[in-house]
Order: sequence, then C-alpha cells, then structure tokens
Amino acid sequence: MKTYLDCIPCFMQQTLRAGRLATKDEEKIKQLLDQTGDLIKHLSMEKTPAEVGEVIYAKIREVTGINDPYKEIKKRSIAEAKEMIPELKTILDKSENRLITAIRMAIAGNIIDFGMSKKFNLTEDVTRILAQDFAYFDFKAFEKHLKKAETILYIADNAGESVFDRILIEEMSKKTYYAVREVPVINDVIFEDAISSGLEDVSEIISSGSHAPGTILSTCSPEFNHLFKEADLIISKGQGNYEGLSDEKRSIFFMLKAKCPVIACDLGVKENDIVLKGINIKNYKNQKDHVKT
Amino acid sequence: MKTYLDCIPCFMQQTLRAGRLATKDEEKIKQLLDQTGDLIKHLSMEKTPAEVGEVIYAKIREVTGINDPYKEIKKRSIAEAKEMIPELKTILDKSENRLITAIRMAIAGNIIDFGMSKKFNLTEDVTRILAQDFAYFDFKAFEKHLKKAETILYIADNAGESVFDRILIEEMSKKTYYAVREVPVINDVIFEDAISSGLEDVSEIISSGSHAPGTILSTCSPEFNHLFKEADLIISKGQGNYEGLSDEKRSIFFMLKAKCPVIACDLGVKENDIVLKGINIKNYKNQKDHVKT
Repeated sequence: MKTYLDCIPCFMQQTLRAGRLATKDEEKIKQLLDQTGDLIKHLSMEKTPAEVGEVIYAKIREVTGINDPYKEIKKRSIAEAKEMIPELKTILDKSENRLITAIRMAIAGNIIDFGMSKKFNLTEDVTRILAQDFAYFDFKAFEKHLKKAETILYIADNAGESVFDRILIEEMSKKTYYAVREVPVINDVIFEDAISSGLEDVSEIISSGSHAPGTILSTCSPEFNHLFKEADLIISKGQGNYEGLSDEKRSIFFMLKAKCPVIACDLGVKENDIVLKGINIKNYKNQKDHVKT
Repeated sequence: MKTYLDCIPCFMQQTLRAGRLATKDEEKIKQLLDQTGDLIKHLSMEKTPAEVGEVIYAKIREVTGINDPYKEIKKRSIAEAKEMIPELKTILDKSENRLITAIRMAIAGNIIDFGMSKKFNLTEDVTRILAQDFAYFDFKAFEKHLKKAETILYIADNAGESVFDRILIEEMSKKTYYAVREVPVINDVIFEDAISSGLEDVSEIISSGSHAPGTILSTCSPEFNHLFKEADLIISKGQGNYEGLSDEKRSIFFMLKAKCPVIACDLGVKENDIVLKGINIKNYKNQKDHVKT
C-alpha cells in the first residue's frame, strides 16, 4: 500500500505524540516536527506509510535520545489486557465456535494502538468487537488453510494486543512463529513485550528484523524472509503490517480493525470495520497444494 | 493566544482539506503540504494560530489559483442554517429568557466549522447545545454591558453560523456592526456570505480587513481598529477570533464552542464546552463608566 496524502498530517501527529512521550523540551519537539516536515518533503508517495514511519521513529529516537518512548504505555497495555483474560477465557469456553471467537479476540486486541489519534476504552471496545459483524470474513478459507498447516508465521502488531494473540495461538495449536519488531517503534511489540505477554509459552518468538511500524520484506531479516516464504500459513495483524504486505504475492490472512480512513479506503471497508481477509488464497492451492477445496 | 505544538499537525490537516477542495491534482496538494511544512519550520510559536492560518490560506489561494475553496460549502451551510430558523424562532418565542436563548443559538451556530476535523450534524448539535451547561457564563455582566451599549461590534466567524448570529443581533436590537473577513479563508464569513445570511437587514456589515481566519488587530483595517476602540460592546464569535483577541486589553465578550483541545486548554475548559466569557469586564467600569455594578 502506498502513502496517501492523508498520511502526512498523521505523520506530524504521530511525531508530536511520540516526541511528547520522549521529552518535555518543547523546542526539541518543534525541531522534531520540522525534521518530519523535511522528511515528508522528500518523501516518495510510492513508499508504504510503514516505511515512512521507520524513518520518522528513527529520527525521534535520535533527536530525543529515548529508545522506547512508549515503554511504560506498553507495560500498562499488557497489564490491562492480562486482566481481561479470565473473562475472555470464560467467553471462549461458552462460545459456539472457539476458533471464530479466538479470532475475534485477537482482532479486538488490535484497538490498542497509540499510532492513532483515536482514544479507546479496552473493556468497552473489546466487548463491542466480540459482537461486531465482519466486513471481510474469509473464515472458511482460513479454517481450511489452518487445518493443513504445520507451521504458522504470526506477524504481531501492538503490545497489549499480544496478550489477545496468545489466545488465538493457543486455540490454533500449531507450531507458531510469533514475529515482533527488531526495535521499539510506536507501541509495537518487541521481544521483551512478547515475553511479558506470555507468548513464549505458546510460540517461538522471533524478530522480523523490522525497524518500521509494519513489515516491509526488503528491510526484514533473511531468517524472517525465509519463514515468510516457507510458513504454511501467515497471519498478519493490524494496519502497519497490512501496509507493507498488502501487495505481496503469497497467501496471507490479515486480521485487523480498520482504524484510519486511509486503510479503510484501501481495503474497501468502512472505518472501524473488522476484517479477516485472505489474499492470494485462490491460487494458494496451485502454489503449494495445501488446500483441497 | 500563541501557537501550540498541537496546532502544527492541524495546520497540515487544514492544508490538505482546503487543497482537496481547490484542486483534484494530488501533486499540487503535495506541493502545498510541503510548503506548509516549510512555513511551519520558520514559524514563530509566539504568533497566534490565526496569523499562521493567514499565511497558509494565502499559499493555498496562490498555488491552486482558487480564491474561495469553501464557496459551495458555505452556500450549503447558509441554506441549511436558514432551514432551521422557523423552528428556532418558535423555541425563542417559548423561552423563559429570550436573550440567553438567542446567545445559545449564536453559539450553537459555531459548530459549523470546516477548519476542524470533527464532523458535525447541524440539527442534532444545535438541539444539544440549546440545553448544554455553559463552562463560562458571564451573562450578568453581558446583560449589563448590553443595556448601556449604544453600539455593538459583532465579530463574525463562520458562514452558516452567521444565520444564527442574526437571531442574536435582532434580539439585542442595538446599532450593530457585523465584521466579516476581507478575503475568503476557510469557511469564514465574507461580505457576500453575510448578505446571503440576511445580516444586512439587522446590522451594518463591515470588513475587518482581516485575511486571517481570525482577528489580529495589527493586520485589520484602520476603520475596524477605530470601531474596536470605540464600540460600547464587543462580541467575538468562535475560536479564530479568540486566538487573536484573547490577550487584548479592552472588554470583549467571547461566545464560542471549544472545538479543539488547544483552545479548550487555553480557556481552561473541556473540549466541546460552550463559553460566554467576558475579559477585562471588571475594569471596564473604570475605563468607560458604562457599567454600574
């Protein structure tokens, strides 16, 4: 997905928000905003927003000297999400279709996003999403792919959401690689956040090598690229990963809530819609003969 | 009021919105955003947001060649507001205190603001504001000043809101100068919009000389400055006028809805609060001996 003009004010807003978390020095934040302005000026709109985000967040780390401005916020998000787990487990146990419910929970966790201006209330929003209709619901295809899959590459998004991911990973009960960012960027999951979220018990946590708030294969590690090619099933969580992977040629299942108008438009859904969308799933059968339809 | 860091992403958003109305040429809009970025870089944060807005909207006119991007939107706003008038007149006639109700109506009209990202629904929002508590309610002082006043300078804000202003001006029934912007800027009222809104029947429409989405006295016309000094009562509508006039030394009554967090913070109120706030009203008595308290 390319960068839209609407992303530009959003980049400035993100710079301000992260800058404020990193420093109280208003002049330094003004400098940061000026530098983001310069970056935007020389920006190719053909890049994905996640690629631009990579440069912006590197600049924030450089100018403020703060490596992980969202560190405390991530800790709180993980703790808050963990508090909901007993209730969610009860809901899961009572549900008609455990897999669908677990997918819903993993998508519900996607509201924990500090890259966005929108405010959220975790408990209220999760409750609503558990009952919300899907805008895309490629569940049958997903279920078939899952059945045949031996290995899953699960590309993580936000810290806190990670706690909800654990539910889905447990439910799928397959060998899962949980891919996190290489460095802190917005409130995205890094290795230590995945550990705090309890992912180690249910998956093999790996770094994608990404420094971006998303997944751009050309900047990911060779190990991740290998897994991306070889994994039987790929689950990509959230907007940032969608931005980088939406034009890839292999089968991917995107799970996300469309929180910004640009992503919603690109997906052809409405803002706040929830999405389980598979790409290249028609050809998947021929490519790897994993699905008998 | 000075410019806050939060205003910077908002300037970019405003540029994008006005740019899109003026042209479909995405490259031209990108140029505009780049130029706004440059302006911001060299911006003194001691300027008011309205002063920055003046430069930005001049740039939009220059780059796109479109003098009034909001022309059609303003026409629609005025028409929509006019449709509400019979109902509002009925409410006014039934109200306990006609002046308070007319003030509420004038403030309710202030939601028609295309400088903001927030969406509004005119009928719903007006109905809510008519019953909303005020965060500041200097009504007694206002009433006293009004009683003694022979001339009123009423500084207008948005087109559409202007239709609601007419109700208050009729109700006050004094010699009123209705000051509009000199040139089109966002959806602010200019001369022709004031005429379409029916202000000619109840007031003398004048230009403030302002090219900004607000009132900065140093850039206003000598005639306006003279009136600003001599008028017995000044009513300043909306955020943009507040930005430019909040530090002035004479008595002014601000009527507005605090639609952005920056203005709300500067006023010491919450976002979405409605405000009738007088400044320098304590000393007014001594200055001009117009009020007996």
